[in-house]
Amino acid sequence: MPPSLREELEDLYAAYVECLDNGELERWPEFFTAVCVYKIIPRDNYDRGLPLALMLCESKGMLEDRVAALRRTSVYAPRSLRHLVSSIRVQRQDATPSAPDGAESIQVQANYAVFQTRLDEPTQVFNVGRYVDRLVREETGLKFNEKLCVLDSVLVPGSLIYPL
Amino acid sequence: MPPSLREELEDLYAAYVECLDNGELERWPEFFTAVCVYKIIPRDNYDRGLPLALMLCESKGMLEDRVAALRRTSVYAPRSLRHLVSSIRVQRQDATPSAPDGAESIQVQANYAVFQTRLDEPTQVFNVGRYVDRLVREETGLKFNEKLCVLDSVLVPGSLIYPL
Amino acid sequence: MPPSLREELEDLYAAYVECLDNGELERWPEFFTAVCVYKIIPRDNYDRGLPLALMLCESKGMLEDRVAALRRTSVYAPRSLRHLVSSIRVQRQDATPSAPDGAESIQVQANYAVFQTRLDEPTQVFNVGRYVDRLVREETGLKFNEKLCVLDSVLVPGSLIYPL
Repeated sequence: MPPSLREELEDLYAAYVECLDNGELERWPEFFTAVCVYKIIPRDNYDRGLPLALMLCESKGMLEDRVAALRRTSVYAPRSLRHLVSSIRVQRQDATPSAPDGAESIQVQANYAVFQTRLDEPTQVFNVGRYVDRLVREETGLKFNEKLCVLDSVLVPGSLIYPL
Repeated sequence: MPPSLREELEDLYAAYVECLDNGELERWPEFFTAVCVYKIIPRDNYDRGLPLALMLCESKGMLEDRVAALRRTSVYAPRSLRHLVSSIRVQRQDATPSAPDGAESIQVQANYAVFQTRLDEPTQVFNVGRYVDRLVREETGLKFNEKLCVLDSVLVPGSLIYPL
Repeated sequence: MPPSLREELEDLYAAYVECLDNGELERWPEFFTAVCVYKIIPRDNYDRGLPLALMLCESKGMLEDRVAALRRTSVYAPRSLRHLVSSIRVQRQDATPSAPDGAESIQVQANYAVFQTRLDEPTQVFNVGRYVDRLVREETGLKFNEKLCVLDSVLVPGSLIYPL
C-alpha cells in the first residue's frame, strides 16, 4: 500500500529537520529544486506583504553558497538546534499545466519550534513560527520549490546563523 | 482512499491551531457543536475533580460572546501565540444510541505547548498541557462537543487572553 | 484496514508519553522487552561513541527497580513533565533471522521537547533532544528493545528525576 500524501509529508519534514539538527548542512540544499526560493521573514513583514527578509536564497546554488560561507568564513559560538514540527497541513494542490510532465504543486503549512543549546548552557527557546511551503514532485521525490520560514519574533537569543 | 481517523484528527487539530495562531477568532466557534463545553482548567483541579476553571463556555453562543468581548472590550498588549500539538490519541469511540443518527462520539487527548510572542520581545513558553476532548461527527465534519484545556501551570507570563 | 507502521508508531509514542506525563511510572517498564537497554546520554558522548550515561538500565527488572527507588527512597520537589514528540521516522527495518519467530526489528528516531512545571512556578523548557530507539514486535505489540534519550544539554533546571 503506497503511503498517503500526509505520510509522505511527515517523512519529508522529519528528514528535513533531521538534516538540520544533525548539522549536516551540505545535504540541506538537496531538499530544494534547482530554482527555488528560501526565505526567513518576520511575521509582520509577511502579513503586510513587505519583502524584507533576514535570509533570502533564490536557487539551490545560493543555498550551497550559504552553507559554504557558514563553514568557511563565519565565526560564531558552537550551538545545536532541535526542531519540533507539528500541524503539517496541505493548503492546496494544483496541477501545473505548464510543467512538461503535468507536475503538481502542493502548498503546505506547518508550525515549528526551534530550541537552541549553546555549550555548557541549558536549552532555550530559539524561535517559533510557521513554514509556508510549496512543494513539487521530482523524480527523486517531493522537493521544496519555495520555503518561507515566517518568524513570530525577530529577537532570538544570540543570532540567526543556521537555516531553519 | 478515505483518510484514516488518525489522519482526519491530525487535519482537524491542525486547522484548529491555525485558526487560533492566525488570530481568526471569529472562526473559532465553528469548531464546536451548538451545545458544547469549552473549559480551561488547571491540572490540579482537573485531577481532583474540582470544577473551578479559568474559562468556561457552555454553548457556541458563549464562545461567540467571548470572542466579541475580546475584540471590543478587552484591553491588552498585542501578542501572538503559536501552538505545537503532538501525541494525538484516540482514547475511546462510543456509539451514541440516543442520537437520532446513531452518531458516534470520540474521546481524544493530545499534548500541546503554546508559545507567546509580545511586541519586540523574544518568544517564550506561554503554557503547556493537554487537550481532553470529545468529538462528534456532524454533517460538516468532526466538531468539538467538549474541549478541556488542562494546564500544567496556572502561572503564565502576562495573562490568559486568548483561547488555547 | 490495518494501521500503517507510521500510525502504529504514532500511537505507541503517544501512549509512552501519556504514561510518563500522567506520572504512571509503574506502567512505564511495560513498554520495554524483558532484556533491554534504556539510557539517558548527553549528545556529545553519544556522537563521540563515549559510553558515559546519566541513567542506564539493562533489563525490565532494572527499570522496575528504578521506579521503586523513585517512589520509595528519593526526595525531590513535586513537579510535572509534559512531552512533545515530533518527526518520528523509521530509519531501518531488519528481519532478525536469529529470532525463533523471525521477528523484525525497527530502528526509529524522534525529536522530543520536555517541559517541566514545579509547584507554583511557570512552565519552563526542561530538556530537548532525540530518541534513538530499536523496537521489536512481541505478542502484545511493539516494545522498546533499546531506547536512548540523547540530550542536547546536560544542564537542566533542577535535576533529572523522572525518565524521559
